[in-house]
Amino acid sequence: MKTIQQNFAVQFRYGVHFTEDLFSKDNELFLDVLPQNAAAHQRKVLFVVDKGVADANPTLLEQITAYTAAHAGVLKQLASPVVIAGGEEAKNDPDLLQQLLAAVNDYGVCRHSYLVAIGGGAVLDLVGFAAAIAHRGIRHIRIPTTVLSQNDSGVGVKNGVNSFGKKNFIGTFAPPVAVINDSNFLQTLEDRDWRAGISEAVKVALIKDAKFYKKIKEDAQKLVNRDMEAMQQLIYRCAELHVEHIGGADPFEFGSSRPLDFGHWAAHKLEQMTDYRLRHGEAVAVGIALDVVYSRLKGMITEKDCNNVLDLLQTLGFDLFVPELTHKEQSGQLTIVRGLNEFREHLGGKLTIMLLTGIGAGVEVNHMEEALISEAVKTLKQKHQPQKLSQV
Amino acid sequence: MKTIQQNFAVQFRYGVHFTEDLFSKDNELFLDVLPQNAAAHQRKVLFVVDKGVADANPTLLEQITAYTAAHAGVLKQLASPVVIAGGEEAKNDPDLLQQLLAAVNDYGVCRHSYLVAIGGGAVLDLVGFAAAIAHRGIRHIRIPTTVLSQNDSGVGVKNGVNSFGKKNFIGTFAPPVAVINDSNFLQTLEDRDWRAGISEAVKVALIKDAKFYKKIKEDAQKLVNRDMEAMQQLIYRCAELHVEHIGGADPFEFGSSRPLDFGHWAAHKLEQMTDYRLRHGEAVAVGIALDVVYSRLKGMITEKDCNNVLDLLQTLGFDLFVPELTHKEQSGQLTIVRGLNEFREHLGGKLTIMLLTGIGAGVEVNHMEEALISEAVKTLKQKHQPQKLSQV
Repeated sequence: MKTIQQNFAVQFRYGVHFTEDLFSKDNELFLDVLPQNAAAHQRKVLFVVDKGVADANPTLLEQITAYTAAHAGVLKQLASPVVIAGGEEAKNDPDLLQQLLAAVNDYGVCRHSYLVAIGGGAVLDLVGFAAAIAHRGIRHIRIPTTVLSQNDSGVGVKNGVNSFGKKNFIGTFAPPVAVINDSNFLQTLEDRDWRAGISEAVKVALIKDAKFYKKIKEDAQKLVNRDMEAMQQLIYRCAELHVEHIGGADPFEFGSSRPLDFGHWAAHKLEQMTDYRLRHGEAVAVGIALDVVYSRLKGMITEKDCNNVLDLLQTLGFDLFVPELTHKEQSGQLTIVRGLNEFREHLGGKLTIMLLTGIGAGVEVNHMEEALISEAVKTLKQKHQPQKLSQV
Repeated sequence: MKTIQQNFAVQFRYGVHFTEDLFSKDNELFLDVLPQNAAAHQRKVLFVVDKGVADANPTLLEQITAYTAAHAGVLKQLASPVVIAGGEEAKNDPDLLQQLLAAVNDYGVCRHSYLVAIGGGAVLDLVGFAAAIAHRGIRHIRIPTTVLSQNDSGVGVKNGVNSFGKKNFIGTFAPPVAVINDSNFLQTLEDRDWRAGISEAVKVALIKDAKFYKKIKEDAQKLVNRDMEAMQQLIYRCAELHVEHIGGADPFEFGSSRPLDFGHWAAHKLEQMTDYRLRHGEAVAVGIALDVVYSRLKGMITEKDCNNVLDLLQTLGFDLFVPELTHKEQSGQLTIVRGLNEFREHLGGKLTIMLLTGIGAGVEVNHMEEALISEAVKTLKQKHQPQKLSQV
């Protein structure tokens, strides 16, 4: 019998919106981003809030409840906001996922309701995954509260939790209904988190946009001084480059190529090796530094360009070396090198790594030389410890 | 700042293939359906087999291993086939899902490997879900072994497991790479399972295709007598109608409409109320009977058409009544009626129920009258117990 052919396309659309003071009563953005619902005047919402964000913004939960009450004609809050622990550790805890699914069940959150996540990347990943699998997918709105999530992870289509000791071992591709970046949340960030997300902007500038790189370089000191306007410009362009890339050739990553993961093969491994002492953006800064030095050792970029990048990362306040970079397996192999294989395994197919041929110009390769990785590690260690060098 | 708009489409393609004796060494269909992999000559596969199927086909596991060995140039079996319990109960057991995810981790199944499920609908749902969430989605091939899964659930894009006592509370929309229907598996089915899947063909014929309904009517006795040719024709047309519908307006069911669930609001509730004593297809037969009688009571179809359908279902060997239909809540409401609300809650949005305006002609409504549901239940009870009626 003849094969029956299935063939269809599914269209996904969402906006990444920018605002401040989202839940002030006269801010109508939140209402505007909920698609009109012909079936019911009221749109049912359940908020899930990162505990760190709730603690740093003590009036937030009340504000949300007051906002939904003020707009009761169109919004129905199904229950008080659910507050859950944030940070990468949250993604290691299967109980948190279960707690979110139970909330969906208990409060009658249906496929046409909105599960709204407010928090850092980890909370967005966790709530996004719960939204993606409960009832085979509940409408999901992301309100990222960190630089990292506002300019990178929060504007994309992925979610995930960790399992078997592996980052994002479990997850899906599930575009949100909307992303809302509220700059107010950035004001309460501790310096580490303000800084950490900047590495993703450096990353995407390095592989795609020399002009953006130049702008980051110019604004480096302002960024260190927590200038909000400079940060907003950085977040906007970084988010835009990520959104453009994701909407391009392969949004759900059916192929092997994943250029936005420049610097990430080492970063993922370092997060794990440091038991998440390094935050994602900090690990990415080290990963970028490693792959930039590697690109120079391979003769792909000039020493001047290489130093330019390392200097920028240091100006921004990033450490370019952590002791875990030099850890070795019993075989004598650098432990970090195992990250290459884990990266390939997670993506599947052929190892595909982004390197640089210049500032703003990425290129994919399918192999990295262990000896050169080792040399790159030594370079970072020396650059990190200039005082010792001078004693030699 | 201006909203950044994301907008992309994802294309999904797969074939539903028909064969017999899939793992005989000279059958190349399995090799043909694995997309060419530029990255590696060998395509990595892990088979997961329904225990019921492995028991009924004692040489199957050896055959699979011999087949992959014979085609070692292009296939690499990552481990011996994993055998797991089947039937609806399997979808209630979180340990089975965990076992599958552990297998993916232990055997290095990556996003470009193939997780191949062989079994009835429950095993396909369970393995499909594991494939959809591990590494954010592993390539998945379905080899349905029952009538129900070959003509309906197995050819679609959904997967799921049960949670909080609710069917498919957790799951995703994740199209497979291919579906392969091997008629050999049908020969070892017990009569109940041979029959059960036929109700889905009656369902789709009733709402979409009067000619197909006529054909089922003509072939009814052959189907009861396990005539393989008649069954193959039924499966083919039923699968085709399902594939066409799914590929139509709303494959991932973003809206409220779900016409293929004709008869299913009651069926889902009955499965739960009978602790899955009723198999899905059997429950669907009762659900169809209920909604057909309801359509007649509403004056939407003639008594002749109504009886025509009930007679067909009985000729095929289905019971049209189970005692659970008359169970009542403390409030006096029929328990089955709660299925309407659970159905609405699972779909979300507005209650949307398919009824009939004729044979081959479905129509959607947004309300059902409890009094008429109650009357329909009485009609089915009487039809089921004609001997008692004659004593009145």
